[in-house]
Amino acid sequence: MTMDARKAAAEAWFRSLRDRICGEFEAIEKEGADLPALPGAPRDPGRFVRTAWTRSDPSGAPGGGGVMSVMKGRIFEKVGVNISTVHGTFTPDFAANIPGASEDPRFFATGISLVAHMANPHVPAVHMNTRFLVTTRCWFGGGADLNPALPREEDTKAFKAQLKRACDAHGADHWDKFSAWCDEYFWIGHRNRARGVGGIFYDYLECPDDAQFEANFAFTRAVGEAFLEAFPPIVRARMGEKWSEEERLALLRYRGLYAEFNLVYDRGTVFGLKTGGNTDAILMSLPPEARWD
Amino acid sequence: MTMDARKAAAEAWFRSLRDRICGEFEAIEKEGADLPALPGAPRDPGRFVRTAWTRSDPSGAPGGGGVMSVMKGRIFEKVGVNISTVHGTFTPDFAANIPGASEDPRFFATGISLVAHMANPHVPAVHMNTRFLVTTRCWFGGGADLNPALPREEDTKAFKAQLKRACDAHGADHWDKFSAWCDEYFWIGHRNRARGVGGIFYDYLECPDDAQFEANFAFTRAVGEAFLEAFPPIVRARMGEKWSEEERLALLRYRGLYAEFNLVYDRGTVFGLKTGGNTDAILMSLPPEARWD
Repeated sequence: MTMDARKAAAEAWFRSLRDRICGEFEAIEKEGADLPALPGAPRDPGRFVRTAWTRSDPSGAPGGGGVMSVMKGRIFEKVGVNISTVHGTFTPDFAANIPGASEDPRFFATGISLVAHMANPHVPAVHMNTRFLVTTRCWFGGGADLNPALPREEDTKAFKAQLKRACDAHGADHWDKFSAWCDEYFWIGHRNRARGVGGIFYDYLECPDDAQFEANFAFTRAVGEAFLEAFPPIVRARMGEKWSEEERLALLRYRGLYAEFNLVYDRGTVFGLKTGGNTDAILMSLPPEARWD
Repeated sequence: MTMDARKAAAEAWFRSLRDRICGEFEAIEKEGADLPALPGAPRDPGRFVRTAWTRSDPSGAPGGGGVMSVMKGRIFEKVGVNISTVHGTFTPDFAANIPGASEDPRFFATGISLVAHMANPHVPAVHMNTRFLVTTRCWFGGGADLNPALPREEDTKAFKAQLKRACDAHGADHWDKFSAWCDEYFWIGHRNRARGVGGIFYDYLECPDDAQFEANFAFTRAVGEAFLEAFPPIVRARMGEKWSEEERLALLRYRGLYAEFNLVYDRGTVFGLKTGGNTDAILMSLPPEARWD
């Protein structure tokens, strides 16, 4: 399989996953059309709005781009599902930290990134991101984790069970390794607490040959499928629950911690912001409303 | 003048400035007691609440501490005025970046740090911070800048005029240098905009002898006095102005940018959070409510 074919296959998967997720989330908005919503919420079920963007490499050469899909609804207070396919040349200091880039600084990256902030404090926020990177090497990375303001053991278990199933089908040590990596990565040091209740985080699943490309690509697809199996049922089960002012306040304060993690620790966010990435696409992860009071 | 006498004099100044500022802000709360306030505001004028904290050096040795003064009022939605006096030993990698610390990693630091987030979108937020650092060298640093969601030329001019007066009385190039440094420091690169409308930022005003200590200490006191001259009149002039829902929304979105700057770029914040500083004291700068919608 040529590298071009691999790139095209990965990109096509991320796009089709985006379409299925957006379709599912819009269906949930319609199902919840009659539920009580926030004062500022739209009257009608939310719909995704798509915005395309392009990037130039620092040299001025075309560098690909992406499409943001953002929905501000009644159930989904704010959800972004971004896909992007970018290419260019790493700067020398950055290339030094990327596998395979010191030999040749050219890169290609395609992926999907999703963050959902929910109006109802009983519905957890969620993050999912998978990507395929190509330098002189190529690899998959990504993850998904659940971010409830008011954790429910039942939801956490159900969410992790789907991810574990995806892991177990594709590697004997995937679950142990990637669930531990998630706990380690999404740690808010200065708060001495985790950002969320867990999930998986993985990176550098290298694909030196077709067999390993197929295996790692299949795992990455399984993570997307697991997300689609795991998250919508939690939303449907919780979105009708009543909430109090205090619970909403707990949600807004929790979102403050979420924003702290993303702006202080998240490597993709901080690196993207400081190196001229698409600010709107990077910061779609930030909560629609947050409190530090 | 011994170094101990210098330390004591600086610390005493920061404490007395804290008392005067808190007194002035509480007086403003009383004057504005009958003005319309936010839905969640207290019924009575706000009062500062003080919380003391202590730190241990990573070695376990006592490392000083500080006092946070926080007021959540009707005019001042959230204001923190922190003082701290800390000492200890820099880690080797940090010592390499601090003047005079590579010779001997022991340090002493005393200072005041203030951030005010105002309920009324017509009243600008403000930041002020001054400090005295001692390694094998010693120096003053600090600054003050105005952060309106809805800038008013008149307020910006009045605020800067007081700071310029303080600068001009203490160094021919202070204003040009420190106002430019402010614009450069408080730049939100990924938004391609300044955090606020300006002020001053200064650092490394070294004090190799008594004359230079006295001169730089006098300038740092003048910055505190300028703040007390400049900011309260702006609050008093604006706090009675009516505001619309849209203006409040503009304030909340502006505060999102403010939080982005502090969490992504502010050296003191990022360094403090990643090296075990007092999280509550460091993050008192974050806005009580913010939006990214």
